[in-house]
Amino acid sequence: MNQMDLMIDRIIEKHNPTVAGLDTRVEYLPEEFIAELGIGAIYTMEKAAQAILAYNKRLIKALCDIVPAVKVQIAYYEMYGVAGMKAFEETLKAAHEAGMSVMVDAKRNDIGATAEAYATSYLGKTQLPAGEARAFEGDFVTVNAYLGVDGVKPFVNACEKNGGGIFALVKTSNPSSGQLQDMKLEDGRTVYEMMGDLVSEWGESTIGRHGYSQVGAVVGATYPEQGRELRARMKHTFFLVPGYGAQGATGKDIAGCFDEKGLGAIVNASRSLLCAWKKQPGVAFDTAARNEAIRMRDDITANINL
Amino acid sequence: MNQMDLMIDRIIEKHNPTVAGLDTRVEYLPEEFIAELGIGAIYTMEKAAQAILAYNKRLIKALCDIVPAVKVQIAYYEMYGVAGMKAFEETLKAAHEAGMSVMVDAKRNDIGATAEAYATSYLGKTQLPAGEARAFEGDFVTVNAYLGVDGVKPFVNACEKNGGGIFALVKTSNPSSGQLQDMKLEDGRTVYEMMGDLVSEWGESTIGRHGYSQVGAVVGATYPEQGRELRARMKHTFFLVPGYGAQGATGKDIAGCFDEKGLGAIVNASRSLLCAWKKQPGVAFDTAARNEAIRMRDDITANINL
Repeated sequence: MNQMDLMIDRIIEKHNPTVAGLDTRVEYLPEEFIAELGIGAIYTMEKAAQAILAYNKRLIKALCDIVPAVKVQIAYYEMYGVAGMKAFEETLKAAHEAGMSVMVDAKRNDIGATAEAYATSYLGKTQLPAGEARAFEGDFVTVNAYLGVDGVKPFVNACEKNGGGIFALVKTSNPSSGQLQDMKLEDGRTVYEMMGDLVSEWGESTIGRHGYSQVGAVVGATYPEQGRELRARMKHTFFLVPGYGAQGATGKDIAGCFDEKGLGAIVNASRSLLCAWKKQPGVAFDTAARNEAIRMRDDITANINL
Repeated sequence: MNQMDLMIDRIIEKHNPTVAGLDTRVEYLPEEFIAELGIGAIYTMEKAAQAILAYNKRLIKALCDIVPAVKVQIAYYEMYGVAGMKAFEETLKAAHEAGMSVMVDAKRNDIGATAEAYATSYLGKTQLPAGEARAFEGDFVTVNAYLGVDGVKPFVNACEKNGGGIFALVKTSNPSSGQLQDMKLEDGRTVYEMMGDLVSEWGESTIGRHGYSQVGAVVGATYPEQGRELRARMKHTFFLVPGYGAQGATGKDIAGCFDEKGLGAIVNASRSLLCAWKKQPGVAFDTAARNEAIRMRDDITANINL
């Protein structure tokens, strides 16, 4: 199963090129919800992780018929130790069971053999003497390509073998992304343009039914001009676009990341969904997230030809 | 406690600037050892993780009086899922209990708020309503700075607050590291030189007793000339040097990464220690690792002024 094709099918079917970011933090949870769980105050790593998982499950249930994918930011689970990783594992499973595409936002990177272990962890199957098993059920994982092709190839191999996909960092959404990424090379390209060219090349062998490869790129919504330029430069590369909502970008800002069919990009929002209840007094957190997901979908689709 | 100072104290005390890489894979374990554990064949993630942890503990015990630090490559634990993360957690604890400095090799990177969550996971303390707790007990974590300063500052802040340290990727040891890192910028520097300058700058506020900051750099042993050049360029930056042994570099190759006092770098070896028993027939794996650690120490110290 080519997961990039499948995700694009879901985007078309739901008429919604957005992904719900589950960067869930305990501070985002309404106190009533924690009380409702009957786990008392969140005193331990285990209880915090349990509350986060319960929150995620409610959000997944509220969003799965209108949002095609989730992106789970692993850092917010690692910070709760082994218990957090268990909540992470269960979150991925719950999203799959709800029929959503699952991105692991982990920005993994290392030299060949170690990159292979990461690819196995999130896209592949771990070999055991009596068979094989999945460590964490991702369909996609984000990747940092500072180490060049031999840190990326094991991920591409895993995509070819198992059907998953990656999104490699090209132009990130943060304020200082330009510090390295915008530097001009001797050959006239910026570092992010050069990285974009490499990412295009790495994807050439995996172009699917919709014309996009299994090797995608992360392109921040906060840099609209660069997004437009990269869209023209990287014809077969699907973009994962963070930075909408809490980071400041609007539907208009990101229109340039899409192609003429309204495809080619999926836009992430995390905090604006997770904390939607804070701006909708009296509305349950999951309903509030759904309301915000609809608003976001409409804001984005109003500016593209999907 | 400034962990960089403490690690340098241990290097001087043991007269050994090396770190044992616990990139432990099930395939590296002798069959007799697995049998000895009484867990039968390694059929599940849990049993595989249990065997890896037992192996690590034996190696830590065999090495802790002569080797100052361990570097635990998290990818090889993530690939065994939640059970692997438990073995990872316990490995860090065992190394601490044995009096070793503990590096988490995770090459983490993300935008500000998420980088903060990673820094909390490995260097800091997770805030809980009733107090704070450590997710994973690292003294150091490796970091990828492709996102620029606002992806790194949260780690530097955690170093200042808790005393830990980071090693940011500058020039990595893999064959394709030059694909991006050796590119020439308009200003005449290479990308890795520019990254080296940034890393130096980020460390300026945390220079310790030995003249080295808590912000270190990863500089691959496989590029001796670049190592020498970076040593001259980055006076206050301690180097973590991978690539010795299985990746091909020798004591002579890496001498240029050290300063005139024989400090300034710590050299990692993983496979050559973990699999030392394969080259020493009839010797127990932990004794074989110890023999190889001594050979490595002597090969390196013969070429520097420690």
